[in-house]
Amino acid sequence: MPQLPNAWLIIVAGGSGQRMGAEVPKQFLPLADKPILARTVEAFLAHISTKQMLVVLPQAHFEAWISLCLPVLPDSCRDIRLVAGGDTRSQSVLNALDTLAELQLSPETLVGIHDGVRPMVSPLVIESTYSLAAQTGAAIPVVPIVPTLREYLTNGSSQTVDRSRFCEVQTPQVFRYDWLVDAYKRLNPETLATDDAGVVELEGYEVTLSEGSHQNLKITTPHDLRVASLYYEG
Amino acid sequence: MPQLPNAWLIIVAGGSGQRMGAEVPKQFLPLADKPILARTVEAFLAHISTKQMLVVLPQAHFEAWISLCLPVLPDSCRDIRLVAGGDTRSQSVLNALDTLAELQLSPETLVGIHDGVRPMVSPLVIESTYSLAAQTGAAIPVVPIVPTLREYLTNGSSQTVDRSRFCEVQTPQVFRYDWLVDAYKRLNPETLATDDAGVVELEGYEVTLSEGSHQNLKITTPHDLRVASLYYEG
Repeated sequence: MPQLPNAWLIIVAGGSGQRMGAEVPKQFLPLADKPILARTVEAFLAHISTKQMLVVLPQAHFEAWISLCLPVLPDSCRDIRLVAGGDTRSQSVLNALDTLAELQLSPETLVGIHDGVRPMVSPLVIESTYSLAAQTGAAIPVVPIVPTLREYLTNGSSQTVDRSRFCEVQTPQVFRYDWLVDAYKRLNPETLATDDAGVVELEGYEVTLSEGSHQNLKITTPHDLRVASLYYEG
Repeated sequence: MPQLPNAWLIIVAGGSGQRMGAEVPKQFLPLADKPILARTVEAFLAHISTKQMLVVLPQAHFEAWISLCLPVLPDSCRDIRLVAGGDTRSQSVLNALDTLAELQLSPETLVGIHDGVRPMVSPLVIESTYSLAAQTGAAIPVVPIVPTLREYLTNGSSQTVDRSRFCEVQTPQVFRYDWLVDAYKRLNPETLATDDAGVVELEGYEVTLSEGSHQNLKITTPHDLRVASLYYEG
Protein backbone atom coordinates (compact mmCIF):
# COMPACT_ATOMS: atom_id res chain seq x y z
CA MET A 1 0.00 0.00 0.00
CA PRO A 2 1.64 3.28 -1.05
CA GLN A 3 1.86 6.19 1.34
CA LEU A 4 -1.05 8.58 1.25
CA PRO A 5 -0.28 11.78 -0.66
CA ASN A 6 -0.59 15.11 1.13
CA ALA A 7 -1.63 13.45 4.40
CA TRP A 8 -0.57 14.51 7.88
CA LEU A 9 -1.16 12.92 11.24
CA ILE A 10 -1.39 14.30 14.78
CA ILE A 11 -1.10 11.61 17.44
CA VAL A 12 -2.48 12.92 20.72
CA ALA A 13 -0.88 11.24 23.71
CA GLY A 14 -1.31 13.91 26.32
CA GLY A 15 -3.20 11.95 28.95
CA SER A 16 -1.79 11.64 32.42
CA GLY A 17 -2.88 8.00 32.49
CA GLN A 18 -4.21 8.14 36.02
CA ARG A 19 -6.89 5.53 35.25
CA MET A 20 -4.19 2.91 34.64
CA GLY A 21 -2.93 3.12 38.19
CA ALA A 22 0.61 2.83 36.87
CA GLU A 23 3.71 4.93 37.55
CA VAL A 24 4.58 4.99 33.88
CA PRO A 25 2.15 7.14 31.82
CA LYS A 26 -0.16 4.68 30.06
CA GLN A 27 1.03 5.44 26.56
CA PHE A 28 4.48 4.12 27.51
CA LEU A 29 3.30 0.86 29.07
CA PRO A 30 4.49 -2.14 27.08
CA LEU A 31 2.22 -3.88 24.60
CA ALA A 32 3.93 -6.99 23.31
CA ASP A 33 7.30 -5.60 24.37
CA LYS A 34 6.98 -2.13 22.87
CA PRO A 35 5.40 1.01 24.36
CA ILE A 36 1.77 1.43 23.33
CA LEU A 37 2.65 4.77 21.73
CA ALA A 38 5.38 3.15 19.63
CA ARG A 39 2.84 0.52 18.49
CA THR A 40 0.47 3.32 17.50
CA VAL A 41 3.16 5.07 15.44
CA GLU A 42 4.07 1.75 13.80
CA ALA A 43 0.50 1.31 12.59
CA PHE A 44 0.82 4.44 10.45
CA LEU A 45 4.35 4.02 9.09
CA ALA A 46 3.19 2.39 5.85
CA HIS A 47 0.69 5.19 5.20
CA ILE A 48 2.08 8.51 6.38
CA SER A 49 5.59 9.90 6.06
CA THR A 50 7.23 10.39 9.45
CA LYS A 51 8.08 13.91 8.22
CA GLN A 52 4.32 14.54 8.31
CA MET A 53 3.64 13.09 11.74
CA LEU A 54 3.34 15.01 15.03
CA VAL A 55 3.20 13.44 18.46
CA VAL A 56 1.63 15.58 21.20
CA LEU A 57 2.93 14.71 24.67
CA PRO A 58 3.22 16.49 28.01
CA GLN A 59 6.65 18.11 27.94
CA ALA A 60 7.61 15.99 30.96
CA HIS A 61 7.26 12.89 28.77
CA PHE A 62 9.51 13.95 25.89
CA GLU A 63 12.39 12.10 27.54
CA ALA A 64 10.27 8.91 27.73
CA TRP A 65 9.54 9.19 24.00
CA ILE A 66 13.26 9.48 23.29
CA SER A 67 14.38 6.71 25.63
CA LEU A 68 11.49 4.22 25.30
CA CYS A 69 9.91 4.70 21.87
CA LEU A 70 12.62 5.85 19.46
CA PRO A 71 14.93 2.86 20.14
CA VAL A 72 12.22 0.37 19.07
CA LEU A 73 11.12 2.33 15.99
CA PRO A 74 12.80 2.77 12.57
CA ASP A 75 15.35 5.57 12.34
CA SER A 76 12.95 7.59 10.18
CA CYS A 77 10.88 8.19 13.32
CA ARG A 78 13.46 10.73 14.47
CA ASP A 79 11.74 13.00 11.93
CA ILE A 80 8.49 12.93 13.91
CA ARG A 81 7.81 16.33 15.43
CA LEU A 82 7.21 16.44 19.17
CA VAL A 83 4.66 18.98 20.40
CA ALA A 84 4.08 19.89 24.05
CA GLY A 85 0.53 19.10 25.13
CA GLY A 86 -1.81 21.46 26.93
CA ASP A 87 -3.99 21.11 29.99
CA THR A 88 -6.91 19.77 27.98
CA ARG A 89 -7.22 17.63 24.88
CA SER A 90 -8.44 20.65 22.90
CA GLN A 91 -5.42 22.68 23.98
CA SER A 92 -3.15 19.82 22.90
CA VAL A 93 -4.70 19.82 19.43
CA LEU A 94 -4.39 23.63 19.28
CA ASN A 95 -0.69 23.36 20.10
CA ALA A 96 -0.23 20.87 17.25
CA LEU A 97 -2.09 23.21 14.89
CA ASP A 98 0.26 26.02 15.95
CA THR A 99 3.16 23.86 14.83
CA LEU A 100 1.47 23.12 11.51
CA ALA A 101 0.79 26.85 11.00
CA GLU A 102 4.49 27.42 10.43
CA LEU A 103 4.50 24.95 7.54
CA GLN A 104 2.12 26.73 5.16
CA LEU A 105 0.05 23.68 4.29
CA SER A 106 -2.48 24.01 1.48
CA PRO A 107 -6.14 24.25 2.61
CA GLU A 108 -7.04 20.82 1.23
CA THR A 109 -4.19 19.03 3.01
CA LEU A 110 -5.66 16.17 5.06
CA VAL A 111 -4.85 16.15 8.75
CA GLY A 112 -5.76 13.09 10.80
CA ILE A 113 -6.00 13.17 14.59
CA HIS A 114 -5.50 9.83 16.31
CA ASP A 115 -5.50 8.63 19.91
CA GLY A 116 -2.01 7.69 21.07
CA VAL A 117 -3.47 4.71 22.90
CA ARG A 118 -5.26 3.23 19.89
CA PRO A 119 -2.47 1.11 18.39
CA MET A 120 -4.58 -1.57 16.69
CA VAL A 121 -5.97 0.61 13.95
CA SER A 122 -5.85 -1.38 10.71
CA PRO A 123 -4.47 -0.38 7.30
CA LEU A 124 -8.02 -0.60 5.93
CA VAL A 125 -9.42 1.83 8.50
CA ILE A 126 -6.57 4.30 7.89
CA GLU A 127 -6.86 4.12 4.10
CA SER A 128 -10.63 4.30 3.94
CA THR A 129 -10.90 7.20 6.38
CA TYR A 130 -8.28 9.35 4.65
CA SER A 131 -9.79 8.45 1.24
CA LEU A 132 -13.29 9.42 2.31
CA ALA A 133 -12.03 12.67 3.84
CA ALA A 134 -10.28 13.47 0.53
CA GLN A 135 -13.71 13.36 -1.12
CA THR A 136 -15.86 14.97 1.58
CA GLY A 137 -13.58 17.16 3.68
CA ALA A 138 -14.08 15.28 6.96
CA ALA A 139 -14.34 11.58 7.80
CA ILE A 140 -14.28 9.48 10.95
CA PRO A 141 -14.42 5.69 11.46
CA VAL A 142 -17.43 4.25 13.28
CA VAL A 143 -18.64 0.78 14.31
CA PRO A 144 -22.11 -0.47 15.23
CA ILE A 145 -23.18 -0.52 18.87
CA VAL A 146 -23.17 -4.10 20.20
CA PRO A 147 -24.98 -3.89 23.58
CA THR A 148 -28.59 -2.90 24.24
CA LEU A 149 -28.82 0.84 24.94
CA ARG A 150 -31.11 2.77 27.27
CA GLU A 151 -31.64 6.51 27.42
CA TYR A 152 -32.08 8.45 30.67
CA LEU A 153 -35.18 10.65 30.55
CA THR A 154 -35.48 14.06 32.16
CA ASN A 155 -38.18 12.79 34.54
CA GLY A 156 -35.67 10.44 36.19
CA SER A 157 -36.81 7.28 34.44
CA SER A 158 -35.25 5.64 31.39
CA GLN A 159 -36.30 3.77 28.26
CA THR A 160 -34.95 1.31 25.73
CA VAL A 161 -33.68 2.95 22.55
CA ASP A 162 -33.04 1.44 19.14
CA ARG A 163 -29.28 0.90 19.08
CA SER A 164 -29.23 0.87 15.27
CA ARG A 165 -29.81 4.65 15.43
CA PHE A 166 -26.33 5.04 16.96
CA CYS A 167 -22.73 4.17 16.31
CA GLU A 168 -19.46 4.22 18.24
CA VAL A 169 -16.83 6.73 17.12
CA GLN A 170 -13.13 5.88 16.74
CA THR A 171 -10.02 7.55 15.35
CA PRO A 172 -8.21 8.57 13.11
CA GLN A 173 -10.55 11.49 12.52
CA VAL A 174 -9.44 13.15 9.29
CA PHE A 175 -10.21 16.70 8.17
CA ARG A 176 -9.27 19.24 5.56
CA TYR A 177 -6.62 21.41 7.16
CA ASP A 178 -8.59 24.64 6.62
CA TRP A 179 -11.76 23.19 8.24
CA LEU A 180 -9.81 21.95 11.25
CA VAL A 181 -8.02 25.27 11.78
CA ASP A 182 -11.24 27.24 11.36
CA ALA A 183 -13.14 25.06 13.84
CA TYR A 184 -10.43 25.08 16.50
CA LYS A 185 -9.81 28.82 16.09
CA ARG A 186 -13.45 29.50 16.94
CA LEU A 187 -13.75 26.90 19.69
CA ASN A 188 -14.96 28.31 22.99
CA PRO A 189 -12.32 27.25 25.54
CA GLU A 190 -15.17 26.35 27.91
CA THR A 191 -16.55 23.72 25.51
CA LEU A 192 -15.59 20.24 26.65
CA ALA A 193 -14.95 18.37 23.40
CA THR A 194 -14.21 14.65 23.65
CA ASP A 195 -14.07 14.30 19.92
CA ASP A 196 -12.58 16.41 17.11
CA ALA A 197 -15.55 15.66 14.84
CA GLY A 198 -17.74 17.38 17.43
CA VAL A 199 -15.53 20.49 17.28
CA VAL A 200 -15.57 20.62 13.48
CA GLU A 201 -19.32 20.12 13.16
CA LEU A 202 -19.96 22.85 15.75
CA GLU A 203 -18.81 25.21 12.98
CA GLY A 204 -21.28 23.74 10.50
CA TYR A 205 -18.95 21.44 8.58
CA GLU A 206 -20.41 18.03 7.81
CA VAL A 207 -18.53 14.95 8.99
CA THR A 208 -18.90 11.71 7.00
CA LEU A 209 -18.51 8.17 8.32
CA SER A 210 -16.11 5.43 7.26
CA GLU A 211 -16.13 1.84 8.46
CA GLY A 212 -14.14 1.34 11.66
CA SER A 213 -13.23 -1.95 13.31
CA HIS A 214 -14.01 -3.39 16.72
CA GLN A 215 -10.34 -4.29 16.96
CA ASN A 216 -9.44 -0.56 16.92
CA LEU A 217 -9.54 -0.52 20.71
CA LYS A 218 -8.73 2.50 22.86
CA ILE A 219 -6.52 1.36 25.74
CA THR A 220 -7.56 3.20 28.89
CA THR A 221 -7.59 0.56 31.64
CA PRO A 222 -5.28 -2.30 32.67
CA HIS A 223 -8.00 -4.65 31.40
CA ASP A 224 -7.91 -3.00 27.96
CA LEU A 225 -4.16 -3.53 27.90
CA ARG A 226 -4.58 -7.25 28.55
CA VAL A 227 -7.23 -7.48 25.84
CA ALA A 228 -4.99 -5.63 23.40
CA SER A 229 -2.14 -8.04 24.17
CA LEU A 230 -4.30 -10.91 22.89
CA TYR A 231 -4.11 -9.48 19.38
CA TYR A 232 -0.33 -9.36 19.42
CA GLU A 233 -0.05 -12.96 20.65
CA GLY A 234 -1.50 -13.80 17.23
CA MET B 1 -24.18 -14.19 51.36
CA PRO B 2 -27.46 -16.00 52.02
CA GLN B 3 -29.65 -17.19 49.17
CA LEU B 4 -32.25 -14.70 48.01
CA PRO B 5 -35.74 -15.51 49.28
CA ASN B 6 -38.54 -16.09 46.78
CA ALA B 7 -36.21 -15.58 43.80
CA TRP B 8 -36.27 -17.51 40.56
CA LEU B 9 -33.95 -17.44 37.60
CA ILE B 10 -34.42 -18.22 33.90
CA ILE B 11 -31.14 -18.67 32.05
CA VAL B 12 -31.73 -18.27 28.32
CA ALA B 13 -29.21 -20.23 26.28
CA GLY B 14 -31.20 -20.80 23.14
CA GLY B 15 -28.83 -19.26 20.60
CA SER B 16 -27.52 -21.33 17.75
CA GLY B 17 -24.09 -19.77 18.22
CA GLN B 18 -23.47 -19.26 14.53
CA ARG B 19 -21.40 -16.15 15.15
CA MET B 20 -18.80 -18.25 16.98
CA GLY B 21 -17.98 -20.27 13.88
CA ALA B 22 -17.69 -23.35 16.08
CA GLU B 23 -19.27 -26.80 15.74
CA VAL B 24 -20.16 -26.83 19.43
CA PRO B 25 -22.96 -24.34 20.28
CA LYS B 26 -21.26 -21.37 21.88
CA GLN B 27 -22.74 -21.85 25.34
CA PHE B 28 -20.90 -25.19 25.60
CA LEU B 29 -17.48 -23.91 24.53
CA PRO B 30 -14.97 -24.16 27.36
CA LEU B 31 -14.12 -21.18 29.51
CA ALA B 32 -11.27 -22.08 31.88
CA ASP B 33 -12.05 -25.79 31.41
CA LYS B 34 -15.82 -25.65 31.98
CA PRO B 35 -18.60 -24.93 29.47
CA ILE B 36 -19.60 -21.25 29.44
CA LEU B 37 -23.15 -22.22 30.45
CA ALA B 38 -21.86 -24.17 33.47
CA ARG B 39 -19.83 -21.08 34.48
CA THR B 40 -23.01 -18.98 34.21
CA VAL B 41 -24.95 -21.38 36.44
CA GLU B 42 -22.07 -21.41 38.95
CA ALA B 43 -22.28 -17.63 39.27
CA PHE B 44 -25.80 -17.92 40.70
CA LEU B 45 -25.40 -20.96 42.98
CA ALA B 46 -24.74 -18.89 46.09
CA HIS B 47 -27.82 -16.75 45.46
CA ILE B 48 -30.63 -18.84 43.95
CA SER B 49 -31.72 -22.36 44.83
CA THR B 50 -31.21 -24.77 41.93
CA LYS B 51 -34.84 -25.86 42.52
CA GLN B 52 -35.75 -22.32 41.37
CA MET B 53 -33.56 -22.20 38.26
CA LEU B 54 -34.63 -22.94 34.70
CA VAL B 55 -32.26 -23.32 31.76
CA VAL B 56 -33.79 -22.74 28.32
CA LEU B 57 -31.98 -24.63 25.56
CA PRO B 58 -32.81 -25.92 22.09
CA GLN B 59 -34.11 -29.46 22.67
CA ALA B 60 -31.23 -30.73 20.52
CA HIS B 61 -28.80 -29.46 23.18
CA PHE B 62 -30.34 -31.15 26.22
CA GLU B 63 -27.88 -34.01 25.80
CA ALA B 64 -24.95 -31.55 25.78
CA TRP B 65 -26.22 -30.05 29.06
CA ILE B 66 -26.32 -33.52 30.60
CA SER B 67 -22.98 -34.70 29.28
CA LEU B 68 -20.92 -31.48 29.41
CA CYS B 69 -22.39 -29.26 32.14
CA LEU B 70 -23.84 -31.52 34.83
CA PRO B 71 -20.58 -33.44 35.42
CA VAL B 72 -18.70 -30.23 36.30
CA LEU B 73 -21.44 -28.77 38.52
CA PRO B 74 -22.56 -29.70 42.06
CA ASP B 75 -25.10 -32.54 42.31
CA SER B 76 -27.79 -30.03 43.29
CA CYS B 77 -27.78 -28.82 39.69
CA ARG B 78 -29.70 -31.94 38.68
CA ASP B 79 -32.68 -30.06 40.15
CA ILE B 80 -32.42 -27.34 37.48
CA ARG B 81 -35.39 -27.53 35.12
CA LEU B 82 -34.61 -27.79 31.41
CA VAL B 83 -37.00 -25.99 29.07
CA ALA B 84 -37.02 -26.37 25.29
CA GLY B 85 -36.29 -23.06 23.55
CA GLY B 86 -38.35 -21.57 20.76
CA ASP B 87 -37.43 -20.09 17.39
CA THR B 88 -36.94 -16.63 18.86
CA ARG B 89 -35.69 -15.32 22.18
CA SER B 90 -39.19 -14.16 23.08
CA GLN B 91 -40.61 -17.62 22.37
CA SER B 92 -37.91 -19.14 24.58
CA VAL B 93 -38.92 -16.88 27.47
CA LEU B 94 -42.60 -17.70 26.85
CA ASN B 95 -41.78 -21.42 27.06
CA ALA B 96 -40.05 -20.86 30.40
CA LEU B 97 -43.06 -18.88 31.66
CA ASP B 98 -45.31 -21.82 30.63
CA THR B 99 -43.22 -24.04 32.89
CA LEU B 100 -43.50 -21.56 35.76
CA ALA B 101 -47.28 -21.34 35.25
CA GLU B 102 -47.64 -24.88 36.59
CA LEU B 103 -45.97 -23.88 39.86
CA GLN B 104 -48.50 -21.31 41.11
CA LEU B 105 -45.96 -18.66 42.08
CA SER B 106 -47.21 -15.67 44.03
CA PRO B 107 -47.50 -12.41 42.00
CA GLU B 108 -44.61 -10.75 43.82
CA THR B 109 -42.17 -13.61 43.24
CA LEU B 110 -39.03 -12.23 41.58
CA VAL B 111 -38.04 -13.81 38.30
CA GLY B 112 -34.66 -12.95 36.81
CA ILE B 113 -33.81 -13.55 33.17
CA HIS B 114 -30.11 -13.92 32.40
CA ASP B 115 -28.06 -14.54 29.28
CA GLY B 116 -26.55 -18.03 29.26
CA VAL B 117 -23.35 -16.57 27.81
CA ARG B 118 -22.83 -13.96 30.53
CA PRO B 119 -20.90 -16.01 33.11
CA MET B 120 -18.93 -13.20 34.76
CA VAL B 121 -21.86 -11.57 36.53
CA SER B 122 -20.73 -10.68 40.05
CA PRO B 123 -22.41 -11.42 43.40
CA LEU B 124 -22.88 -7.67 43.85
CA VAL B 125 -24.70 -7.23 40.53
CA ILE B 126 -26.97 -10.21 41.29
CA GLU B 127 -27.78 -9.08 44.83
CA SER B 128 -28.33 -5.44 44.00
CA THR B 129 -30.54 -6.13 41.00
CA TYR B 130 -32.82 -8.59 42.82
CA SER B 131 -32.93 -6.26 45.84
CA LEU B 132 -33.92 -3.27 43.75
CA ALA B 133 -36.56 -5.30 41.91
CA ALA B 134 -37.99 -6.37 45.28
CA GLN B 135 -38.59 -2.68 46.00
CA THR B 136 -39.68 -1.44 42.57
CA GLY B 137 -41.07 -4.44 40.67
CA ALA B 138 -38.48 -4.40 37.88
CA ALA B 139 -34.73 -3.78 37.84
CA ILE B 140 -31.91 -4.22 35.34
CA PRO B 141 -28.15 -3.63 35.65
CA VAL B 142 -26.58 -0.92 33.50
CA VAL B 143 -23.09 0.52 32.97
CA PRO B 144 -21.97 3.87 31.52
CA ILE B 145 -21.14 4.11 27.83
CA VAL B 146 -17.35 4.34 27.36
CA PRO B 147 -16.89 5.32 23.68
CA THR B 148 -18.00 8.50 21.95
CA LEU B 149 -21.46 8.02 20.41
CA ARG B 150 -22.97 9.42 17.22
CA GLU B 151 -26.57 9.35 16.12
CA TYR B 152 -27.68 8.77 12.52
CA LEU B 153 -30.11 11.46 11.39
CA THR B 154 -33.02 10.87 9.04
CA ASN B 155 -31.46 13.15 6.39
CA GLY B 156 -28.55 10.72 5.98
CA SER B 157 -26.05 12.68 8.05
CA SER B 158 -25.08 12.10 11.67
CA GLN B 159 -24.17 14.07 14.77
CA THR B 160 -22.29 13.69 18.04
CA VAL B 161 -24.54 12.91 21.00
CA ASP B 162 -23.87 13.26 24.70
CA ARG B 163 -23.02 9.72 25.82
CA SER B 164 -23.92 10.52 29.43
CA ARG B 165 -27.58 10.48 28.29
CA PHE B 166 -27.25 6.73 27.63
CA CYS B 167 -26.24 3.53 29.34
CA GLU B 168 -25.52 -0.06 28.32
CA VAL B 169 -27.96 -2.72 29.48
CA GLN B 170 -26.90 -6.07 30.95
CA THR B 171 -28.57 -9.03 32.68
CA PRO B 172 -29.95 -10.43 35.00
CA GLN B 173 -33.11 -8.46 34.35
CA VAL B 174 -35.41 -9.07 37.30
CA PHE B 175 -39.19 -8.59 37.39
CA ARG B 176 -42.21 -9.31 39.55
CA TYR B 177 -43.66 -12.53 38.22
CA ASP B 178 -47.08 -11.01 37.50
CA TRP B 179 -45.57 -8.09 35.52
CA LEU B 180 -43.46 -10.45 33.43
CA VAL B 181 -46.37 -12.78 32.66
CA ASP B 182 -48.65 -9.89 31.81
CA ALA B 183 -46.12 -8.28 29.49
CA TYR B 184 -45.22 -11.47 27.64
CA LYS B 185 -48.89 -12.53 27.35
CA ARG B 186 -49.64 -9.30 25.49
CA LEU B 187 -46.48 -9.24 23.39
CA ASN B 188 -47.15 -9.01 19.68
CA PRO B 189 -45.24 -11.95 18.16
CA GLU B 190 -44.05 -9.60 15.40
CA THR B 191 -42.25 -7.36 17.89
CA LEU B 192 -38.53 -8.00 17.84
CA ALA B 193 -37.48 -7.62 21.47
CA THR B 194 -33.76 -7.86 22.24
CA ASP B 195 -34.33 -7.14 25.88
CA ASP B 196 -36.92 -8.26 28.44
CA ALA B 197 -37.04 -4.79 30.00
CA GLY B 198 -38.23 -3.50 26.64
CA VAL B 199 -41.07 -6.04 26.65
CA VAL B 200 -42.14 -5.19 30.18
CA GLU B 201 -42.10 -1.43 29.66
CA LEU B 202 -44.14 -1.78 26.45
CA GLU B 203 -47.00 -2.62 28.83
CA GLY B 204 -46.42 0.51 30.87
CA TYR B 205 -44.46 -0.96 33.78
CA GLU B 206 -41.50 1.12 34.89
CA VAL B 207 -38.06 -0.50 34.93
CA THR B 208 -35.46 0.78 37.42
CA LEU B 209 -31.69 0.64 37.05
CA SER B 210 -29.09 -1.05 39.24
CA GLU B 211 -25.33 -0.76 38.90
CA GLY B 212 -23.87 -3.33 36.50
CA SER B 213 -20.21 -4.08 35.88
CA HIS B 214 -18.04 -3.84 32.77
CA GLN B 215 -16.78 -7.32 33.67
CA ASN B 216 -20.29 -8.73 33.11
CA LEU B 217 -19.41 -9.46 29.50
CA LYS B 218 -21.72 -11.18 27.01
CA ILE B 219 -19.69 -13.77 25.12
CA THR B 220 -20.78 -13.74 21.48
CA THR B 221 -17.56 -13.92 19.45
CA PRO B 222 -14.33 -15.95 19.66
CA HIS B 223 -12.64 -12.71 20.70
CA ASP B 224 -15.08 -12.28 23.61
CA LEU B 225 -14.22 -15.80 24.74
CA ARG B 226 -10.53 -14.97 24.82
CA VAL B 227 -11.22 -11.79 26.76
CA ALA B 228 -13.40 -13.69 29.22
CA SER B 229 -10.63 -16.25 29.75
CA LEU B 230 -8.37 -13.46 31.03
CA TYR B 231 -10.61 -13.08 34.09
CA TYR B 232 -10.36 -16.75 34.96
CA GLU B 233 -6.57 -16.76 34.65
CA GLY B 234 -6.74 -14.52 37.74
